[in-house]
Amino acid sequence: MTESVLDYMTRLGRAARAASRVVASASTAQKNRALHAAAEALDAARAELTAANELDLAAGRANGLEPALLDRLALTPARIDGMIEGLRQVAALADPVGAIRDMSYRPSGIQVGKMRVPLGVIGIIYESRPNVTIDAASLCLKSGNATILRGGSEAIHSNRAIAACIQRGLAAAELPAAAVQVVETTDRAAVGALISMPEFVDVIVPRGGKGLIERISRDARVPVIKHLDGICHVYVDALAELPKAQAVAFNAKTYRYGICGAMETLLVDQAVAAAFLPAMEQMFTEKGVELRGCARTCALIQATPATEEDWSTEYLAPILSIRVVDGLEQAIEHINRYGSHHTDAIVTEHQGRARRFLAEVDSSSVMLNAPTCFADGFEYGLGAEIGISTDKLHARGPVGLEGLTCEKYVVIGDGQLRGQNA
Amino acid sequence: MTESVLDYMTRLGRAARAASRVVASASTAQKNRALHAAAEALDAARAELTAANELDLAAGRANGLEPALLDRLALTPARIDGMIEGLRQVAALADPVGAIRDMSYRPSGIQVGKMRVPLGVIGIIYESRPNVTIDAASLCLKSGNATILRGGSEAIHSNRAIAACIQRGLAAAELPAAAVQVVETTDRAAVGALISMPEFVDVIVPRGGKGLIERISRDARVPVIKHLDGICHVYVDALAELPKAQAVAFNAKTYRYGICGAMETLLVDQAVAAAFLPAMEQMFTEKGVELRGCARTCALIQATPATEEDWSTEYLAPILSIRVVDGLEQAIEHINRYGSHHTDAIVTEHQGRARRFLAEVDSSSVMLNAPTCFADGFEYGLGAEIGISTDKLHARGPVGLEGLTCEKYVVIGDGQLRGQNA
Repeated sequence: MTESVLDYMTRLGRAARAASRVVASASTAQKNRALHAAAEALDAARAELTAANELDLAAGRANGLEPALLDRLALTPARIDGMIEGLRQVAALADPVGAIRDMSYRPSGIQVGKMRVPLGVIGIIYESRPNVTIDAASLCLKSGNATILRGGSEAIHSNRAIAACIQRGLAAAELPAAAVQVVETTDRAAVGALISMPEFVDVIVPRGGKGLIERISRDARVPVIKHLDGICHVYVDALAELPKAQAVAFNAKTYRYGICGAMETLLVDQAVAAAFLPAMEQMFTEKGVELRGCARTCALIQATPATEEDWSTEYLAPILSIRVVDGLEQAIEHINRYGSHHTDAIVTEHQGRARRFLAEVDSSSVMLNAPTCFADGFEYGLGAEIGISTDKLHARGPVGLEGLTCEKYVVIGDGQLRGQNA
Repeated sequence: MTESVLDYMTRLGRAARAASRVVASASTAQKNRALHAAAEALDAARAELTAANELDLAAGRANGLEPALLDRLALTPARIDGMIEGLRQVAALADPVGAIRDMSYRPSGIQVGKMRVPLGVIGIIYESRPNVTIDAASLCLKSGNATILRGGSEAIHSNRAIAACIQRGLAAAELPAAAVQVVETTDRAAVGALISMPEFVDVIVPRGGKGLIERISRDARVPVIKHLDGICHVYVDALAELPKAQAVAFNAKTYRYGICGAMETLLVDQAVAAAFLPAMEQMFTEKGVELRGCARTCALIQATPATEEDWSTEYLAPILSIRVVDGLEQAIEHINRYGSHHTDAIVTEHQGRARRFLAEVDSSSVMLNAPTCFADGFEYGLGAEIGISTDKLHARGPVGLEGLTCEKYVVIGDGQLRGQNA
């Protein structure tokens, strides 16, 4: 490139800002037309996508990329099917844009309410999985936003091929090409530029490892929707039905070890620990889950002594820390201190304690008699998610179309004046 | 003080975080008891408040503070009445905390909904008006948040005296003293510390001049709820009823020159400019408002030629810039380019153009046939406001109790498991 990375990113940003005005006022039908056309383009471009992906895979192998990363990078026929299906699902979701709520008359005679509108331009920064290109682009487009996508350099050919299909979709619906832009350079300075243009970019959504997200959050001059860790807890109360509690705790850990909603620490009321833990030990041991426990846990079952560090570790692996607590109070304290404000559950039949847990645990999702692995946009009925936010401002928990929009006030009068009405 | 400012602020932060857990689960009755008791304490402490305020006023006079600032600093009996009344009004507002909405069953059998909860700890940084201490403390307390208040050094005695009354209120309701803390040092490093403690402070609300807010937004490591400018527009469409449009435009400018919702630029469709502007010129000239116009404006009425800078200036004074535009398209372009995304209005009877204006103007409040000066928490029915946000994430427009809270997900099951249900 003869232009500098900064100039290039500024050009992308300016084009995105202009396109965002058009996409913001595009009709639902027009946006859906683009999504369906992109799905057809993907279906027609399978050979093209596979060839592009082969370039990335070959380069990855040559660069000694780990097998797990190579696997994430691979665009298998099933994953292409998944992208096509994803586009159709997003097209089927209700359009949040333009919804007006709570219009009510004020004493002055004006009507005041709120209208849901797109955020504007969304920058997505992500790592190897090329299917994120489709997920992110489709959710942003459906919610009326323009997007700038910055995937990992290891997936650049795949992302370009996917972007070409999205472009065909946009063209078919007569939407501007700059509504979805893929950063074409692998220069790292592009990320720095993307997160420092508040005049062109309204929000950044980083998806990837904790290191990436921490770096971006620290350096960004644009708001960031993010989550860092999922250190999720299940607390088994003295009044839990134990078989239910065992099933919930087992599912919370073993549904999938690698998801952010997986339970990392099990808390048990001391009153039921002796009755509850041995059966759990058997289930987890049979499944190959390593157990690390506090002193009271180790007195009841076979477990490695847990260190202080265990309580604040997101294993994302078949390892579980277990702590016996004095009761609800200590469980809430433990979660608010060591947790990551992601998702935490209580298992109990005691109404009062359930109510207190749900109110006082300071996490983006709080659950009663349900495993933490349910923390997911599909399971919550959002249709799809762009990520899970553990921040408190704006979106909290799984972020779907609504989290990619905001509400502005709408005031309707008929010539009412301030300070001059009864 | 023997401890460093950083240690002092850390101590305040840690105490606020601990208190925030208590305030978050305080009952509505308990919070209201504190607000009413604080109102009684203010009423009983009038002499004390006046004496403390006299110290600040004397120091201000000695330091050559401008008369306008001295006026803002003064705690007159009427202003003390206002603070007492404000506390009672906030007590009368509905408590947003704990409200659960949209609980619905998912195919898996779990119920998913959202619960409104406090943000946690709110830092308020403000300038001379001591009554902000009461406004901010009462809104934060009612919404279940702990607050750290950092007023201007010129109001330190007044703020301390007010804080003492708030403390009496908290004590009467058996709420922790650290629920509302006033920073006792006038050292500027305290601000730097307050905006750099994400572990103790969840959001910063700066109130004051543009310089203060820009500085804080730039340096903060904590999210900021803010607005910088109120460059508000009224656009008079070709299908406006002219007497209505004239009354709206006049009120938008002259209700009060110094509020952020005051109109700074009047846009007029060229089709009605000749019929509309001369009467406006007469009204504004009689009122002493200086007019600055584009070339087409100056051809129709007496006005100083407007410079490019005028379009992006918030006068907060009896000065108005006027531009004749080709139509709706150009009006929207002008507003999105030169405006500050605060509040903008269209005057028209044309349904289609009204609809387009409301959808496409990218401002925190958009208005139809109403003057921009209505942009205000009381007028919108929020009861009170902590500020007006022109940001897009989280709260947008006037920020009341709801803007000081967020929603977390609540999931209720009865032992449902993921991946194992029909």
